[in-house]
Amino acid sequence: MELSLQQIAEFIDGAVEGDAAIEIRGVAKIEDAQEGEITFISNPRYAKFIDSTAASAVIVGKDFPSVAKPIVRTQNAYYSFLKLLRYFHPQKELLDAGVHSKADIHDSAKLGANCRIGAYAVIDSGCVIGENVQIYPGVFVGKGVLIGDNSIIHANVTLREDVQIGRNVIIHCGTVVGSDGFGFAPEGEIYHKIPQVGTVIIEDDVEIGANCTIDRATLGATIIRSGVKLDNLIQIAHNVEVGANTVIAAQTGISGSTRLGKNNIVGGQVGFVGHIETGDGVTVGAQSGVSKSLPANSVYFGYPARPIMQAKREEAMVRKLPDLLKKLNELETKVETLSSLLNQNR
Amino acid sequence: MELSLQQIAEFIDGAVEGDAAIEIRGVAKIEDAQEGEITFISNPRYAKFIDSTAASAVIVGKDFPSVAKPIVRTQNAYYSFLKLLRYFHPQKELLDAGVHSKADIHDSAKLGANCRIGAYAVIDSGCVIGENVQIYPGVFVGKGVLIGDNSIIHANVTLREDVQIGRNVIIHCGTVVGSDGFGFAPEGEIYHKIPQVGTVIIEDDVEIGANCTIDRATLGATIIRSGVKLDNLIQIAHNVEVGANTVIAAQTGISGSTRLGKNNIVGGQVGFVGHIETGDGVTVGAQSGVSKSLPANSVYFGYPARPIMQAKREEAMVRKLPDLLKKLNELETKVETLSSLLNQNR
Amino acid sequence: MELSLQQIAEFIDGAVEGDAAIEIRGVAKIEDAQEGEITFISNPRYAKFIDSTAASAVIVGKDFPSVAKPIVRTQNAYYSFLKLLRYFHPQKELLDAGVHSKADIHDSAKLGANCRIGAYAVIDSGCVIGENVQIYPGVFVGKGVLIGDNSIIHANVTLREDVQIGRNVIIHCGTVVGSDGFGFAPEGEIYHKIPQVGTVIIEDDVEIGANCTIDRATLGATIIRSGVKLDNLIQIAHNVEVGANTVIAAQTGISGSTRLGKNNIVGGQVGFVGHIETGDGVTVGAQSGVSKSLPANSVYFGYPARPIMQAKREEAMVRKLPDLLKKLNELETKVETLSSLLNQNR
Repeated sequence: MELSLQQIAEFIDGAVEGDAAIEIRGVAKIEDAQEGEITFISNPRYAKFIDSTAASAVIVGKDFPSVAKPIVRTQNAYYSFLKLLRYFHPQKELLDAGVHSKADIHDSAKLGANCRIGAYAVIDSGCVIGENVQIYPGVFVGKGVLIGDNSIIHANVTLREDVQIGRNVIIHCGTVVGSDGFGFAPEGEIYHKIPQVGTVIIEDDVEIGANCTIDRATLGATIIRSGVKLDNLIQIAHNVEVGANTVIAAQTGISGSTRLGKNNIVGGQVGFVGHIETGDGVTVGAQSGVSKSLPANSVYFGYPARPIMQAKREEAMVRKLPDLLKKLNELETKVETLSSLLNQNR
Repeated sequence: MELSLQQIAEFIDGAVEGDAAIEIRGVAKIEDAQEGEITFISNPRYAKFIDSTAASAVIVGKDFPSVAKPIVRTQNAYYSFLKLLRYFHPQKELLDAGVHSKADIHDSAKLGANCRIGAYAVIDSGCVIGENVQIYPGVFVGKGVLIGDNSIIHANVTLREDVQIGRNVIIHCGTVVGSDGFGFAPEGEIYHKIPQVGTVIIEDDVEIGANCTIDRATLGATIIRSGVKLDNLIQIAHNVEVGANTVIAAQTGISGSTRLGKNNIVGGQVGFVGHIETGDGVTVGAQSGVSKSLPANSVYFGYPARPIMQAKREEAMVRKLPDLLKKLNELETKVETLSSLLNQNR
Repeated sequence: MELSLQQIAEFIDGAVEGDAAIEIRGVAKIEDAQEGEITFISNPRYAKFIDSTAASAVIVGKDFPSVAKPIVRTQNAYYSFLKLLRYFHPQKELLDAGVHSKADIHDSAKLGANCRIGAYAVIDSGCVIGENVQIYPGVFVGKGVLIGDNSIIHANVTLREDVQIGRNVIIHCGTVVGSDGFGFAPEGEIYHKIPQVGTVIIEDDVEIGANCTIDRATLGATIIRSGVKLDNLIQIAHNVEVGANTVIAAQTGISGSTRLGKNNIVGGQVGFVGHIETGDGVTVGAQSGVSKSLPANSVYFGYPARPIMQAKREEAMVRKLPDLLKKLNELETKVETLSSLLNQNR
């Protein structure tokens, strides 16, 4: 599987600077790369490694300076790396072809061509599963679930009744889609369960991490729009909508009926209260607590979440509080002195 | 299934104001409701929608003003909505009757009448399962577990050995009850596992969300009292006790041996340290860090958690820090001026 | 199973002070212990219970004062308690011997002697499982996984392809090892998935709680070193390394490529950003947000995490802000008075 640097440049639509004849046998991260391997620099903070890396060549972007080491210059270094990663590590088949004899498929369920279904998976009545779908062992697909073409449902996932999964969706192990929303009507000291008769809609090209929980809507649907990427252990409450191509890091929670815009970037362990909205292009820093709606293209941070410049300034002020107190005490002394001087003068 | 507004009023024990003859074919949230549907207003923040909603009628509480739109006035608008929701969306059977041929029930396990057990569920030796219990596919019920009548154990839940589940309990997908408490005796650099020989007791009418973890006690029992409602991804450590009718939002964690009182309301992503207690009727705001015991009927908030009025006041002060610093600097200048004036005068 | 206090002292390598002939029939925590039971005091905060406990005897450490109640003095009271706990509560067999007829073991998988495999567990092709391994119902072990001797994999765990589990490892229910790292190359508004072709290595003597997620590396391995103890609902991202004998409490998350040193102690709900390191012997308080590397043997706390003394001091200052503002206002008034006095004098 070795490629010359010239062949690599053609494969990733880039241009070689340096010896185009050197042979490359693999890809690696810049800090781990060995001789004969190619690496990449997309984040400027890693540029400093270019002199020390043992890699034989480096993929860089348009603006990267010329260097002694052979480079391949491309439009998007990270994406080029991705293509080479897939070349040197072709996708392995992780689930055997066909429907396992120990899977339990209801007679009324419809399976598209080329599905792979693992042992002890359950597909209940009325399900419609597209082509090339992979359903791993231990998955429970409840009644009336729809799954689009090419989607992958990893082991021990639960898709409850009537949820709709789009095409090219990946759901990682242990995640639950369609659990009941958390809704109760209090009456005196006790709580009556509100039936959760809505559903969940996951659009195309969504990836959902491991052990997430995505609750069904009370009425209507909880919606994860196309291209959304969710990390692990994320909580999405009933009637939430996550806008297209929004990315959310691990352990974040979104409360009921909140709507995130498109192309949001949300850090880990963030909490959103219910019934708020974010505009498109919003960024929220890790561990923030978002308690009100956020305007489009804003950057928020902190507990409670504030515009990031304000949050950083206030944080810096808190760091200075001991100095501030000292200054105040000195000023107080000075004023006392002035005051007695003045009294003497009178 | 259409009902006249008069019939609805009788069904939910309310009184019509306006045209009692109009026909209602469904229920919806106020922002989504269409003509021919009824909605409700229990939260005053939604009152503003009453003029814009397309709903043909609205359920309201005792204190709601008279309006042009037909209303049904009841004691508890939210609870009335719940009853109509169940009328228009009758509970579907989500699990087929009987014990699935591919479930694995130990010979010594006892099942009450009318249980429904899904494919690939395991019920181990010595279990005693009540009447009308539903156990979904992929559930593992360890040795000696007790489950009371009418309880529902959703797919891929694990109930480890000897845990006790009450009546009318609902446990959502992926939740683990009875995992080992996190206890180790350090000896030099290494940690010896403390055997966790206690259990977990879940009382009647409890609902537990998806992918929660409820650890067994080291000795004795971790106890979830009757009527408790837990949201998703909640961590309950060994020897914790959660008081009756306490409600906890998603991703909150309670450390070992802590006891919450009755009727607490706990927000999402809250953390409680170990070995503390809360009184009855305590409210804790989202993302708070509770590091000491809290008195009954108090409202706490923040990191660290403080009485909410104090927390809000201190937060407002932090917002004012830049102003405060400015004021201090101005004062300093003024004092300098005074000082030199005074020196001139001498 | 009764033992005299003398026998207990011999069993735990301690010395009796008081009546060595009394009979002990069980162990309990100091607040729960009854007559005929022995308890222990290792945490000084429980010393106050020694007069009120109903226990017939107490295990204490070297420095504990002499008391009226019979005691057994040992090197490590907590560890001695652990040994007695195991004596009075011998380990029960929770999983029946042998391979369950309803487990699905691939022909090419190798199982060591005395393995116990539960119903509906799946062990895929190429796996190599050591001796005395226990794999509970509903576990999915992907292709090419290695599991060392004496390890216990609890119900509904997923071990994805090629992950390596050491000896004497315990993985609690619902945990996912080897899910894809969260890596995407943005191109315009959309995100391309970075193939995650690395793996996870769990070394010997590790214990991992319930419903945790441990992602595989993009390239190379995510590594959990020997003796590490992880609580429940913890997120370990791709390419993270957790140093030997480090202990992490529930709901903590560690972002990609971060490395924790040895013997760290990390509280619950802590977040670490990616690409940082902690030295050996670091302690991080609960709910902290760690955004930069931490030096060895340091104690950090807060959001953002700071040296604990600094964090506590700044927090105390925030508590004093209302006083500080009052003082500033008083000073301002005083300066105004001085100023007008001075003007009169001129």
